[in-house]
Amino acid sequence: MALNKEPYKGTRDFFPKQKRVQNYIFSKMKTAAESFGYEPYDGPLIEEVELYKAKSGEELINDQIYSFTDRGERFVAIRPEMTPTVARMVAQIHREESKPLRWYSIPNLMRYEKPQKGRLREHWQLNCDIFGAPGRFGEIEILQVAVNLMRSFGATAQDFEILLNDRSIVDLTFQKIMGLSKEVASKLYKIVDKSKKVPHEAVVEMVNKLGMNEKQQELFYSYLALKSFDDLGKFLEHHNELEARDNFLKFVSPLREMGLLDYIKYDATIVRGLDYYTGIVFEIFDKDPENRRAICGGGAYANLLQIFNEQPLAGVGFGLGDVTLTDFLKTHKLLPEGCENPVIDYLVTFQDERCVSRAFEVANILRSKNFKVVQHFEPLKMNKVFPLAEKKGASFVVIMGETEFNENTIQLKNLKTKQQETIALSDFKK
Amino acid sequence: MALNKEPYKGTRDFFPKQKRVQNYIFSKMKTAAESFGYEPYDGPLIEEVELYKAKSGEELINDQIYSFTDRGERFVAIRPEMTPTVARMVAQIHREESKPLRWYSIPNLMRYEKPQKGRLREHWQLNCDIFGAPGRFGEIEILQVAVNLMRSFGATAQDFEILLNDRSIVDLTFQKIMGLSKEVASKLYKIVDKSKKVPHEAVVEMVNKLGMNEKQQELFYSYLALKSFDDLGKFLEHHNELEARDNFLKFVSPLREMGLLDYIKYDATIVRGLDYYTGIVFEIFDKDPENRRAICGGGAYANLLQIFNEQPLAGVGFGLGDVTLTDFLKTHKLLPEGCENPVIDYLVTFQDERCVSRAFEVANILRSKNFKVVQHFEPLKMNKVFPLAEKKGASFVVIMGETEFNENTIQLKNLKTKQQETIALSDFKK
Repeated sequence: MALNKEPYKGTRDFFPKQKRVQNYIFSKMKTAAESFGYEPYDGPLIEEVELYKAKSGEELINDQIYSFTDRGERFVAIRPEMTPTVARMVAQIHREESKPLRWYSIPNLMRYEKPQKGRLREHWQLNCDIFGAPGRFGEIEILQVAVNLMRSFGATAQDFEILLNDRSIVDLTFQKIMGLSKEVASKLYKIVDKSKKVPHEAVVEMVNKLGMNEKQQELFYSYLALKSFDDLGKFLEHHNELEARDNFLKFVSPLREMGLLDYIKYDATIVRGLDYYTGIVFEIFDKDPENRRAICGGGAYANLLQIFNEQPLAGVGFGLGDVTLTDFLKTHKLLPEGCENPVIDYLVTFQDERCVSRAFEVANILRSKNFKVVQHFEPLKMNKVFPLAEKKGASFVVIMGETEFNENTIQLKNLKTKQQETIALSDFKK
Repeated sequence: MALNKEPYKGTRDFFPKQKRVQNYIFSKMKTAAESFGYEPYDGPLIEEVELYKAKSGEELINDQIYSFTDRGERFVAIRPEMTPTVARMVAQIHREESKPLRWYSIPNLMRYEKPQKGRLREHWQLNCDIFGAPGRFGEIEILQVAVNLMRSFGATAQDFEILLNDRSIVDLTFQKIMGLSKEVASKLYKIVDKSKKVPHEAVVEMVNKLGMNEKQQELFYSYLALKSFDDLGKFLEHHNELEARDNFLKFVSPLREMGLLDYIKYDATIVRGLDYYTGIVFEIFDKDPENRRAICGGGAYANLLQIFNEQPLAGVGFGLGDVTLTDFLKTHKLLPEGCENPVIDYLVTFQDERCVSRAFEVANILRSKNFKVVQHFEPLKMNKVFPLAEKKGASFVVIMGETEFNENTIQLKNLKTKQQETIALSDFKK
């Protein structure tokens, strides 16, 4: 029986046309991260499951992880996300390094999911994290990185928005203002997380099951109705939480000054499922309803190193996936025309078969001058030279026919200017 | 209990210092492959085990593969090598594409091995393959790519050598000249494969068990004693295999003309374990006995698409791993000094704390001009500015003290020329 030619479910074959598009996206990611001095890192493809258990939500561990027992009886998983790895790495070295640490990576990750629009089993994800930044500067910079990256693709505030919340304020609201226990608060988090995906009645039904009193329910719905940073400020003021309000304003004011509020909106329903966030949380969304999944998710976490028995080190980071980003760029026609096509400098051809070894020589001389050169191995008729050159994305072609063979020359044609010149082989070799 | 901070056995954490070295190596790989017009591709991290079973040696499937059953009862494995994936992908599209196809990739791969010098469980591997090249041109070009890559690191014929054989000639020797059955021949392959790693007596003992007659044994040892392309030519001539000799000379002569025989030596013991090779096979070795494992292995295969019920398509390729390559580069001091260190354009600092928001502004203006900019978030004393700038690999620093705050200027210092200039903020923003 013949084997299946298709890739494993939920993964992609990147043929050169697709890989060049991905490379374009990766190079923008790299440029944006490095423009802020983020330094590259990478970690192992697999980690022990314990690490994910300690850091991630239950759903991830139970249903979505590619876990297995290795031949040495270690229970391991293909990395579903990069944050636990980066935390493990930072835990090793943070005491010797001056802060802040700024790191980025573009790892391949796997989650066992039902493949659907915007969600595959394997994807790549830009991870940017800053550790040990003072005050709220890390949060501000991370948002800047995300905005600059999106803008570097040519995206504008018409195309995308960053929806942002602050977990410390949600905690304050649920536990202090509403007076809920940690346990009920954590259940309410899950309801908030789902609230935009289900009808309002379903939210009400879920809330009713939590046994909150009328006052608490009222507070909850007034929280859920907050639509802007101003709303949130008034809400905190109304409940006499002036310190929390001022602290949050200290974070929002510079964003406003820097023009970032053109992109960033307050959203009470953004809480991010994973447990480790303690400060801001945010997600980037395409404004086109065609693409409903978040392009990016991130936030601030204070305690990520504690599972390694290390002192707390404040961190802020995001993960931005290539699947949703590519959908976004295609929807808004932000992929540059032709970025999927090959580009080379020279196509080396010969028409007289006696030039075959000369073709090898010419091609390798051009390579030694740092050109990209495709060598055609067999005599190529003149009427086929230019179609092939175009297909290969060549700027120049080398032509060697009978005359060139006899006269020890090569013909060089510039495909843009159409200029053609004859060069003595002896000069060319110099 | 605190979690383990170490990476999973046999894998590596790439901190920025190590990742930059890897990026240097990857960029050389990419440049070498693209200088021959090889096009980038990538495939899934996991494939169905059936695919590896069909194409790889038994040892790999039984003992060395990271295989598991997914939640949908598919028996899959983390890719241990790239060739089966590239074959599967080429099988999908080869009928529509003009030949030759030239493809490269630098995937991460995993094998369950005992971690040791030159061998880890996770590594990255440059894969270059050419499909559908006429005659022996594909084999020649693939060797050129490998040599050019090694040379691009500054390596010379004093540092490395390519040991090469031809499986079609080994087949001819074992089956036609020696008259062995396919079964015995295949056992003999395995002995040849091991022959350099064990004492000669062990080879004799293994050979004795195969039940070959005296004449066959004599032929085998005379084959094993061949030390050069000339030896091989004479051996074939002696056994009246003139066609095979001429065919092989047609391959060797251009290599000689192109100077590639400075790097490439004939080696009768190179056969490569995997089953799919049908033409040349080769491995690159460090000449320093410190590093004994092959840096690279490759060869030509005629039938890789048949498992997909496709017409045969001749291919030649190699895989070159980052672990052995890095050992090689370190041994021969071929990693450029400082390639592990960060490089940025600007470090933006302020000494007067009122300049904090100006620092954000200045830094982002510089980024919009495509500079790499690290912004320091807190007032930095003058005596700490230059040590920090050096550590960050900055070419310039921005300084903003009380004078600059009052006069709406910034100080810009070029760290190479030591020149310092004062720029009005209004000019800077233009």
